[in-house]
Amino acid sequence: MGRLIEITDPGDVRIAEFTSIRERDLTGRHGQFVAEGTVVLSMLAKAHADGGSVRAEKLLLLKNRVAGLSDLIEQFAADIPVYVAEAAVLDAIAGFHLHRGVLALGSRAAPPELNDLVSRLPNNSLVLVGCGISNHDNIGALFRNAAGFTADAVFLDQTCCDPLYRKALRVSVGSVLMVPYARQGSAEEVLGALAAAEFEIWALSPGGVVEIGSIAPGRRVALVMGTEGEGLPAAILDRFRSARIAQAPGLDSLNVGTASGIALYAIARAMGRLG
Amino acid sequence: MGRLIEITDPGDVRIAEFTSIRERDLTGRHGQFVAEGTVVLSMLAKAHADGGSVRAEKLLLLKNRVAGLSDLIEQFAADIPVYVAEAAVLDAIAGFHLHRGVLALGSRAAPPELNDLVSRLPNNSLVLVGCGISNHDNIGALFRNAAGFTADAVFLDQTCCDPLYRKALRVSVGSVLMVPYARQGSAEEVLGALAAAEFEIWALSPGGVVEIGSIAPGRRVALVMGTEGEGLPAAILDRFRSARIAQAPGLDSLNVGTASGIALYAIARAMGRLG
Repeated sequence: MGRLIEITDPGDVRIAEFTSIRERDLTGRHGQFVAEGTVVLSMLAKAHADGGSVRAEKLLLLKNRVAGLSDLIEQFAADIPVYVAEAAVLDAIAGFHLHRGVLALGSRAAPPELNDLVSRLPNNSLVLVGCGISNHDNIGALFRNAAGFTADAVFLDQTCCDPLYRKALRVSVGSVLMVPYARQGSAEEVLGALAAAEFEIWALSPGGVVEIGSIAPGRRVALVMGTEGEGLPAAILDRFRSARIAQAPGLDSLNVGTASGIALYAIARAMGRLG
Repeated sequence: MGRLIEITDPGDVRIAEFTSIRERDLTGRHGQFVAEGTVVLSMLAKAHADGGSVRAEKLLLLKNRVAGLSDLIEQFAADIPVYVAEAAVLDAIAGFHLHRGVLALGSRAAPPELNDLVSRLPNNSLVLVGCGISNHDNIGALFRNAAGFTADAVFLDQTCCDPLYRKALRVSVGSVLMVPYARQGSAEEVLGALAAAEFEIWALSPGGVVEIGSIAPGRRVALVMGTEGEGLPAAILDRFRSARIAQAPGLDSLNVGTASGIALYAIARAMGRLG
């Protein structure tokens, strides 16, 4: 494996993008992102090979894992550098203990404009909309479930966090790199654009009118998720249809990830999309 | 509020159980546990007042939050000490920054024996079984979903982690204190005990035979969840009925929490338990 380039100095400029990656989660990164773990790296390699907006730039691997990762490394084009480092060096770079030691730097072009993405959706379409979701785990879970239940796209309003944040990408198990998404506009603007494109808009809320398993969906459906604490604004619940997930009375509502999974499953199944 | 006792020394023995609580997650604690946040503390107060096996022992609060927490404090019996500390002292006690600053120490008697809990279940019963679930977030999610979808009990095999771990309790939003559970025996022993009590046993697996939304459940149902990576052992899948959640082909399976939520929702709904 002549491609391997050993890094012995944690300050080496060639791997500068990986320094203190936990803190960088807070900064945004001009389209660059850090991917972790063999599953996500494999999806990054695939997205890169597909020639779309996602590019792989470099790999950084724990030296003693390289022998077991040759199949993964081969998935990346030969001009992508593969840096390797001993555990102590890798931990000094990252700023904390990386027990897996499988990292990549990727980049992607800015996501599409809201209206561009809407215009590209197929006639029969299921999309997931996130409003005000600022928790990285929850954003990641939305993408994982969107991919799992055949959603054609994810729409995030401008108050949602960036799904390319390290932890969101990890929790999504790489789905952020696969599912088309836009992240632009207020919740009203996003839903307005979808309503104009003849989407049935179902806002999920503990006080929703229709039980999710009873919906007979049309050919284009948008499922809207708000935050766990506040939920969706009343203006949205009043203007569009609302759905609830039947559950035991008197409890805190479900986790956003779980709720999105149940609702997407129920709707995708009712739309005949799950085989 | 004459009950408040100010702590100024992070080494004060009266709050010793809260020192370095992140590391303590790894140790087990002889039936003691740390609860965090207003929702979980409120459930702890309720469990204590119910006079069952769960007891509240002491509270430790961020001093500048106390004024807003008087309703919560009043839920705890007057003989339960309420310690307060400034942020710097509280962080020094905990060993990291506690931005919420709402903690309690609780304790509970050992959970019931496997067979005792089985014998106490009602005639119409839905239970959740976890096998090999060692991730604290996933254990917490199982309990949150069990509570949300009316499960009568949770059964954990002996390889599952303790649901009283700080993070599991937090992710469960206190449900661990409310849903009866046992944590004893091998997966085979747990399922054997349930099968002997006439439970239909459905093991959830990506390769399961019956789609979860197509099950016509009987009066007693046990839903069995394995780990995200390995899934359930073949011996379990072969011996009992197996169910799958329909989803897009070729992807990594769902998160354990989400999968348990979807499956519990589908079964509880089919059993007519969700109103």
